[in-house]
Amino acid sequence: MPAKKNVPPRGFPDAEYEVRLDSTHRAMSAAGLNALLLTTEADIAYLSGFRTQFWQSPTRPWFLVVPKAAKPIAVIPEIGAACMARGWIEDIRTWSSPHPTDDGESLLYAALEECAGPGGKVGVPMARETYLRMPVLAFDALRQALEITDAAAILRDIRMVKSPLEIDKIAHVCTRVSNAFDRAPDLFAAGQPDTETFRAFKIECLRQGVDDVSYLVGGAGTGGYGDIISPPSGRPLRRGDVLILDTGCVYDGYFSDFDRNFAIQHADEDARRAYDTVYRATEAGLAAARPGATCADLFHAMQEVLEAGGALGNAVGRLGHGLGSELTEPPSHAAFDDTVLAPGMVITLEPGMEFAPGRNMVHEENIVIREGSPELLSRRAAPELPVLD
Amino acid sequence: MPAKKNVPPRGFPDAEYEVRLDSTHRAMSAAGLNALLLTTEADIAYLSGFRTQFWQSPTRPWFLVVPKAAKPIAVIPEIGAACMARGWIEDIRTWSSPHPTDDGESLLYAALEECAGPGGKVGVPMARETYLRMPVLAFDALRQALEITDAAAILRDIRMVKSPLEIDKIAHVCTRVSNAFDRAPDLFAAGQPDTETFRAFKIECLRQGVDDVSYLVGGAGTGGYGDIISPPSGRPLRRGDVLILDTGCVYDGYFSDFDRNFAIQHADEDARRAYDTVYRATEAGLAAARPGATCADLFHAMQEVLEAGGALGNAVGRLGHGLGSELTEPPSHAAFDDTVLAPGMVITLEPGMEFAPGRNMVHEENIVIREGSPELLSRRAAPELPVLD
Repeated sequence: MPAKKNVPPRGFPDAEYEVRLDSTHRAMSAAGLNALLLTTEADIAYLSGFRTQFWQSPTRPWFLVVPKAAKPIAVIPEIGAACMARGWIEDIRTWSSPHPTDDGESLLYAALEECAGPGGKVGVPMARETYLRMPVLAFDALRQALEITDAAAILRDIRMVKSPLEIDKIAHVCTRVSNAFDRAPDLFAAGQPDTETFRAFKIECLRQGVDDVSYLVGGAGTGGYGDIISPPSGRPLRRGDVLILDTGCVYDGYFSDFDRNFAIQHADEDARRAYDTVYRATEAGLAAARPGATCADLFHAMQEVLEAGGALGNAVGRLGHGLGSELTEPPSHAAFDDTVLAPGMVITLEPGMEFAPGRNMVHEENIVIREGSPELLSRRAAPELPVLD
Repeated sequence: MPAKKNVPPRGFPDAEYEVRLDSTHRAMSAAGLNALLLTTEADIAYLSGFRTQFWQSPTRPWFLVVPKAAKPIAVIPEIGAACMARGWIEDIRTWSSPHPTDDGESLLYAALEECAGPGGKVGVPMARETYLRMPVLAFDALRQALEITDAAAILRDIRMVKSPLEIDKIAHVCTRVSNAFDRAPDLFAAGQPDTETFRAFKIECLRQGVDDVSYLVGGAGTGGYGDIISPPSGRPLRRGDVLILDTGCVYDGYFSDFDRNFAIQHADEDARRAYDTVYRATEAGLAAARPGATCADLFHAMQEVLEAGGALGNAVGRLGHGLGSELTEPPSHAAFDDTVLAPGMVITLEPGMEFAPGRNMVHEENIVIREGSPELLSRRAAPELPVLD
C-alpha cells in the first residue's frame, strides 16, 4: 500500500454542523417554515453527520426533522441509533423497523407537529432534482394533517458552497484517483476483457486510498465509444480502441467525479482531433470559471469550442455540474442555469461531444471556484490522447 | 487473480424478460390496471435489463411504463438511450435532461395516457418499503390528470421468487465472498486500523471476482461490537476484539449479503457463548426454512434459540430478509410477516442479539428455498468463533 500522507481527518467538528444549521435556520425563517423534513442520505448526513452504507438497504425510511430554532431531531429505525448517537445529534427517536402498519409514521408526525405547532408550515424538498425517500402513502397521510410546502432550494443553495473541510476531503479523493489513473499503462492492455480493466482500476483506486469506488462506468470502441454510462461487457480491449473510464470515488462521504481517455496501441487521427477539441473546451471552461460568472456562461464558453470542433451533439444534457457528497449535485452547466459561481463551489467541467456517428469523446475535471482562477482538484488530463502500449 | 471458473454469463436471454412481463401482465389484469409506472433502479432493471451505476447520480429521473398488454416503454434521459437500446426494450423515448421546466414529465404523461386511456388506472408502488424516485411536485401533477393507485404488491411478489439464472448470479457472488472471508487470517491482524481492515477486504473481494463491494459495514470492540451498520473509524484492531464484517457484494446486478465474525488473538468466554447461540439459531432457521413455512415461523424458530441463549434484545428489527437485485428485499423474518416460503426464494437468515449491554453478535447466511432442505449459497460459517493470530 502507498504511504498515507496528509489524509484529512474523518468527520467534522461540531462547529461545522453549527454553521450549517445556522444557515438552514436563516433560510427557513426567510421561507416562513416552522420545520424542515429531510429523508435522503446526503441531506440527512449534511445536518447530522450520520454516515452509513446501510442506505443501500431500501427497506427502512429515515427521517431528520429540523425545528426552526433548535438542533435537528433524528427519527430513525432502532438499528441506526448507536451510529447516529456517535455524532452531533442529541434528540434521537427510534422505532423497531420494519413495522407492518406504522413504520415510523406516528413518531415522525409527533415530531413534526411538536415543531410546527398548529397551522405551522413544514418544508420538504419536492421540486426538480429531488425525491422523497419514504412511501408515497405515508407522505400522503402527513400531508392530510400538516401544511407541507416545497423547500428544495434551502439545502440545495447551502450545500452548493463547500466549506474548507469539505473541499479537503474532495481534494483528497481527487488526488488519489489521479494517482490511480497515472498507473493506467501498468493496468490496461490490449486483449484484456473490459471487465478486468474495470476490476484492475477499482483495486488500484482502493490501494491508492479511496474508501469506495462507488461509481465506475465507461466503454471502449474502435476509434471512440458509444456511450459513457454503461457497465463493462466482457469485450476485450483492441488495438485502435478509445477507452474511457469515468469514476466517482469516495473518501469519508465525499466524491470525486472525473474521467480519463486512453487509446489502445494506436490512436486514429479523428479521435486525436476530438480529444484536442474537448481538451481545449475544458481550457475555455477553466478560463471562464470565475466568481460572478454563471453556469450558463461556463456552458457557452465550452460549447463554442465544441461546436467549432465539429460536435454533432451531446447526449449528456449539460457540460458539468456540482460535486460533493453526491456524485452529481446542482448546479448544471447548461444554457438554462443562471446560478452565479461563488468561491467554495466545487464543480466538474465536463465538455463532451459525439464527433462521428456513435463515437463520443468526453473529458472531465474537478475544480473549486476561488477568487481569481479556479483550483484544479483532479490532476489535469494529458494535453494529447495518451496511447497505451 | 484467481482463475475465473464457471462464471455465469452477464445479462439474461429475452425469454427471461418475457416470463417476467407475462407475470406482471397477469398481476396487472387481476388488479384492474391499464398501466404500471416504475421509477427505481431494481424495478426498472427487472423488466428492462437496464443496468448502469449512473443511478448514483440523483439529478435525472428515469421511468418505465408497462402497458397492460405490451412490452414496457422506457421514458428516459437521452444519456441512457444507447445503454437501454442494447437490451430487450424497443420503445425508448428520450428527452435532454436535466431540463428546467419539463424534466420528462410531458413525455411520461403522454406515455401513461396512451396506455391507460380515458379513466384507466395507473399503478405505482406507493405502500411500505417503497419510494418514488421522481420529484413529488412532478408526481402531484400526474395524479391530477390520471387515476393513480398503489401497486407495490405486484413487483414485490413477482420478484420475491428468483429464476434459476438469477439464483446462479447470487450463488456466484456468495461463493466469491466466501472465498474472500476464507482469507481472513492473511488479511486482518491486531494493530491494523479498521479502515485498512475494510480496505484489505474490499480488494480481496474484487480479486476473487465480484464486480463491486457495494456494501461493507461492521465494527470491532472488546468482547463484542456496539452496532453493525457503521463505517470504519480508524481504531486499530486489538487483542480480545470481536470483529464483524457484513458485506453486500454484487455480480451482474445481484447481491450477496452475509457477515462473518472473528476474534482477534483471544476470544472471551461470553463472546464464544454468544457465537454458539447465534450459530445454533441459524441451524434452527435452516431446519425451519421449508416450502409452506412462513417467515413468522422462521423468526420464531430462531428467536427461541436466541432467547434461551440470553438475548437482551435485537435492534435489527428482524432475523433476515429477502435478497436479490437489492441488498435487502421483502419478505422479513419477523413475527408480523406471514409470507409463505416457496421454492426459488432467496433469503438471508440473520439471527442476532445483544448479549451484554453494548455488545452484539450477529450471524448471517444466504440460502435458496428448495423442495426439502434449503440450499446454502454462502459457505457455512465456522461452528466456533474463529480466532485470528
